Amino acid sequence: MVDKQQLIHFDSDYLCLAHPAIVQRMAEEVLVPHTGYGCDEISEHARQRIREVCGCETALVAFLTGGTQTNAVVIDALLASYQGVLGADTAHIGMHEAGAIEAMGHKVITLPSHEGKISAETVDSYMKVFCGDESWEHCAQPGMVYITFPTEYGSVYTLSELEDLHAVCKRHRLWLYLDGARIGYGLAAAGTDVTLKDIACLCDAFYLGGTKCGAMFGEAVVIPRAGIVSHFFTQIKRHGALLAKGWSCSLQFDTLLSDDLYFKITRYGVEMGQRLKEQLVQKGYRLLQDSPTNLLFFVLDNRQLTLWRRLATFDIWEKRADGRAIVRLVTSWSTREEEIRDFVAQV
Amino acid sequence: MVDKQQLIHFDSDYLCLAHPAIVQRMAEEVLVPHTGYGCDEISEHARQRIREVCGCETALVAFLTGGTQTNAVVIDALLASYQGVLGADTAHIGMHEAGAIEAMGHKVITLPSHEGKISAETVDSYMKVFCGDESWEHCAQPGMVYITFPTEYGSVYTLSELEDLHAVCKRHRLWLYLDGARIGYGLAAAGTDVTLKDIACLCDAFYLGGTKCGAMFGEAVVIPRAGIVSHFFTQIKRHGALLAKGWSCSLQFDTLLSDDLYFKITRYGVEMGQRLKEQLVQKGYRLLQDSPTNLLFFVLDNRQLTLWRRLATFDIWEKRADGRAIVRLVTSWSTREEEIRDFVAQV
Amino acid sequence: MVDKQQLIHFDSDYLCLAHPAIVQRMAEEVLVPHTGYGCDEISEHARQRIREVCGCETALVAFLTGGTQTNAVVIDALLASYQGVLGADTAHIGMHEAGAIEAMGHKVITLPSHEGKISAETVDSYMKVFCGDESWEHCAQPGMVYITFPTEYGSVYTLSELEDLHAVCKRHRLWLYLDGARIGYGLAAAGTDVTLKDIACLCDAFYLGGTKCGAMFGEAVVIPRAGIVSHFFTQIKRHGALLAKGWSCSLQFDTLLSDDLYFKITRYGVEMGQRLKEQLVQKGYRLLQDSPTNLLFFVLDNRQLTLWRRLATFDIWEKRADGRAIVRLVTSWSTREEEIRDFVAQV
Amino acid sequence: MVDKQQLIHFDSDYLCLAHPAIVQRMAEEVLVPHTGYGCDEISEHARQRIREVCGCETALVAFLTGGTQTNAVVIDALLASYQGVLGADTAHIGMHEAGAIEAMGHKVITLPSHEGKISAETVDSYMKVFCGDESWEHCAQPGMVYITFPTEYGSVYTLSELEDLHAVCKRHRLWLYLDGARIGYGLAAAGTDVTLKDIACLCDAFYLGGTKCGAMFGEAVVIPRAGIVSHFFTQIKRHGALLAKGWSCSLQFDTLLSDDLYFKITRYGVEMGQRLKEQLVQKGYRLLQDSPTNLLFFVLDNRQLTLWRRLATFDIWEKRADGRAIVRLVTSWSTREEEIRDFVAQV
Repeated sequence: MVDKQQLIHFDSDYLCLAHPAIVQRMAEEVLVPHTGYGCDEISEHARQRIREVCGCETALVAFLTGGTQTNAVVIDALLASYQGVLGADTAHIGMHEAGAIEAMGHKVITLPSHEGKISAETVDSYMKVFCGDESWEHCAQPGMVYITFPTEYGSVYTLSELEDLHAVCKRHRLWLYLDGARIGYGLAAAGTDVTLKDIACLCDAFYLGGTKCGAMFGEAVVIPRAGIVSHFFTQIKRHGALLAKGWSCSLQFDTLLSDDLYFKITRYGVEMGQRLKEQLVQKGYRLLQDSPTNLLFFVLDNRQLTLWRRLATFDIWEKRADGRAIVRLVTSWSTREEEIRDFVAQV
Repeated sequence: MVDKQQLIHFDSDYLCLAHPAIVQRMAEEVLVPHTGYGCDEISEHARQRIREVCGCETALVAFLTGGTQTNAVVIDALLASYQGVLGADTAHIGMHEAGAIEAMGHKVITLPSHEGKISAETVDSYMKVFCGDESWEHCAQPGMVYITFPTEYGSVYTLSELEDLHAVCKRHRLWLYLDGARIGYGLAAAGTDVTLKDIACLCDAFYLGGTKCGAMFGEAVVIPRAGIVSHFFTQIKRHGALLAKGWSCSLQFDTLLSDDLYFKITRYGVEMGQRLKEQLVQKGYRLLQDSPTNLLFFVLDNRQLTLWRRLATFDIWEKRADGRAIVRLVTSWSTREEEIRDFVAQV
Repeated sequence: MVDKQQLIHFDSDYLCLAHPAIVQRMAEEVLVPHTGYGCDEISEHARQRIREVCGCETALVAFLTGGTQTNAVVIDALLASYQGVLGADTAHIGMHEAGAIEAMGHKVITLPSHEGKISAETVDSYMKVFCGDESWEHCAQPGMVYITFPTEYGSVYTLSELEDLHAVCKRHRLWLYLDGARIGYGLAAAGTDVTLKDIACLCDAFYLGGTKCGAMFGEAVVIPRAGIVSHFFTQIKRHGALLAKGWSCSLQFDTLLSDDLYFKITRYGVEMGQRLKEQLVQKGYRLLQDSPTNLLFFVLDNRQLTLWRRLATFDIWEKRADGRAIVRLVTSWSTREEEIRDFVAQV
Repeated sequence: MVDKQQLIHFDSDYLCLAHPAIVQRMAEEVLVPHTGYGCDEISEHARQRIREVCGCETALVAFLTGGTQTNAVVIDALLASYQGVLGADTAHIGMHEAGAIEAMGHKVITLPSHEGKISAETVDSYMKVFCGDESWEHCAQPGMVYITFPTEYGSVYTLSELEDLHAVCKRHRLWLYLDGARIGYGLAAAGTDVTLKDIACLCDAFYLGGTKCGAMFGEAVVIPRAGIVSHFFTQIKRHGALLAKGWSCSLQFDTLLSDDLYFKITRYGVEMGQRLKEQLVQKGYRLLQDSPTNLLFFVLDNRQLTLWRRLATFDIWEKRADGRAIVRLVTSWSTREEEIRDFVAQV
């Protein structure tokens, strides 16, 4: 029988509470009084650090708790009530957020995608057909393009793809919003030519993910041109997303952005992923699609699946009619090198 | 000039990050992997502890992040779309939640209150007039009574008042929901005859507040008869309120409920409040209304206000036309005895 | 026993299907094909007529079905998601619209009123307290003032009161929206100094009520500066308020605005109301408050109520603890002179 | 140059105001007073007639104004806040209702369709995958299947297909809701084996369309088991969908259901459609798919399109990359036989 405690965990990048430096910092602050609701000095310091790494001095920066919440708050803040958001048919907001976007009244309009990405061409043709159609005024008006970086399939947009999306959004008056739940892993992706400053330059809004990149919880929203939203504080509160002890979240980002920690640990997470990928491929396992990040998708037959499940925990993404399964392996800042070694040795 | 660092803080009960035992516990768990979304063993243990202190073995228990979020999730889960919630005209949901309840489509219907409390009689007459009126079907249908314990004014309902509210709610088929953001202080109130088990017995839903009672963040929703809500997990997610690392919240309650810590520290907070109250009254300061908890309201003239502001930080609740001000002093688990002593000595 | 058919009806101003000229016009158009959704020539003609009587050549004009729908569409179109609307504590949107405004996410914030009206001073002090309060960012942001003309109590604002409201709204950056369900009766009120052009000049949005002023159904929204809303057509559709056969509504306004019919028949309705009022007062009946329009409120003792109910149908507005009742009598374009005469003769 | 007045209109089935019998009935009722909000005798009579033709004596019947409104009201009334509705990827609610369903917080979940229809198998496999997936609780919960009869492509479900959908819905605890905007034409479809009583027996909710079947406006919602919704009147009001003069709508259904008028005129509309179809096919025009109703889709090349546009007005449904166009021709109760003859003669 399988001892669950002995299994190797490739389920997700939010398996462990937090990077130890964060809890260390919490211990130091534990009895120091602070002003509530993000109006404290730690939060201000963290906001300043984020503006610096993003290269946008006047950005609005706000700290929220989790990804679905952040998507709902940002999308709702940027869209008028009658507007919808365009996203890949594989997008998290359409698939796995329990209708949180629709709960605020906005339609999620799906576009065909490739390896989790949507192209500027797809957006452009959608908008041309939409605006050219006689019944377009009878439809939810597209107001934003939502992308993930890296995508739900571990792929990353190239700089040129982002520039094209930026241009097509500008042309059709759509906001470009980048969900950065795993942005640290995306920026550390093998061969990527995208920097955080590029993202800040090309997107109307995005967030630096904390939960999946070493924080206990928290996502840092960045809106480079602060003037495009109004009363963002009130809107956060209205979503039930305002933390009384705002510094409990911001001190995590303040810590992660000290000494490049955020980027060091996500780079490490990607290294673990790439090492795992290469060794499994060498052993003959078949990738669903190549991935330069910490999210790996393999196509397993039944025998392989049974073997893997005896050794590790991971998500079964899809069960195919032919009996094969698509499985997802995730590495992270908390993956240990011996986990990779032990798993590979046994499969 | 005033040195802000030297001031005594009576602003709120969420001034310090967390009780040190919580951060200690986090340090112990920092690299232990857990299943996400509250499906881990710590969360299950914490839920069990809460069921025990509440005396309801089969209650649904869920951990959320903050008070406004909790109110929005619970109210939305218990009401049908066309129903509204009855609350005191001083209620937090109506005043200071940025329209979070209305954001989910529910009207907040205000009732006259006394010292922050609404009475069973008030609810009863409202419902009689409402149902007797020819146009009642043209109105948002009341579906719930919302109360706070202690109230925004620091007062607490007596057991008999709660029993009456329970009865009137049952008679008119209204849910009774108790916002327990400060429930620890309420249960420790001077002279209260209400226990947590009474609350669990008389209310359809309530929450054990964490944020104001020693936690870093977090509120524990309790629905004694679990069957009255469906798909609560999905509803939490839809509100953007689902924590990926659920145990970051539940371990706080697990810690607070060990060795009676939650009740010890809130009892201490109330003791500090009562001591402060008595000494200020003795010095001739005038209470707006008596309070048996950690929230104190004083009526100050201009000279008194100026003096106090040189010594401490606190909220100005209301400025009266006659120049006087209503101020609120809050003590908590993190108030130090010397703060009370120093403040009283100087005023 | 009372024969219901023989009773005189003072229930409302929407007792009869429509002014006969409207059904006559429908008969003429019955088999003439038209383009859908208000893009037909009759609708364009009616819009042009309305722009003319309002004195605003470039106004946006749209035809909706009923009052609650119109309020929900206009308020939702002018407010950002996080904004609320200020209205009298007696306002229709707060009392009798089943939470339709909250259904779209907006809080209705009530202000004290006098005889159904709110004053510029009340708005001003609310806004001053609101903006001066430390916690204002935690509250639904006021974005609009909603008034009714005439009010639910039959009273009308004077020109100077409207000018003051306009000024205070401008000062605090609030939209001023006038619910004109009974605007025809208001403009015909005894002694009023307000014209339709004044309203078009002072309000950001208002509507010419059809349902209560002779139409079968329909309200004509006027937004003098069309640029303040976007995609209004789509927003109407999103509210389920777009009529496929738009001309079924607009031809009613086109008919009512021919030969001054709209104003003739509402003037007549007010004359009937004033005659009824004077004769009842002469007979010793007590008004709750004077009214210059077609809505009359009387305070009746039990004996009087019993007598009246044997003769007529009308709404009982409120039952007082002392046994007396406030009743509402409504006259309209369809009231017959002999109804007034017969009723007065018998009471 | 084309004289628009001389064109033949195949745009839609809502080209003319109403069947003359309806306006005749309005003329008879024009000055008869009635109780408001559907509580009058005509409405009660119409409800009773509808219950009879549907064969369900205790059904809830309510009259609304248009299709999008009806869909929003019914879907919102039957679903819990966190539930979504399953529909064909071509469904009206997903495509052309401006996000009205999402405006009430419900996700529209699209399923692959064939000729506008979804099959029980498709629903079944969706639900099996959905419920079998580990992340199903993170998703909007399907609560209803939405179908149109006839579909947006003019096709109709067979009795056996409806029975299968009924069964699969029951198995997965989904409501089955049938949008009957054109139900009259569907029941008159060539070769259909479905009756109104079958629909009433197999669906949890549906509506008898008025707007497209001879009424000026109006749709009659039928909920065979009335107990499955609560406070439907209040919910209608909350959607801004309650007509003050309810009888303006119900008298139309009362008239249409006298002497089988509703079915006679829709049968005629289908006859016109079938005649048009056969003659065009005979002339060599190519159908996109066969249709047994009044909605016809043809694939035209550029030359054909140019010719047709000189003679008639109709919708261009889709422009294909190869230059060809899909066009939709619609006949109805108001199509004249000579229009068919003249059009066919000239193409």
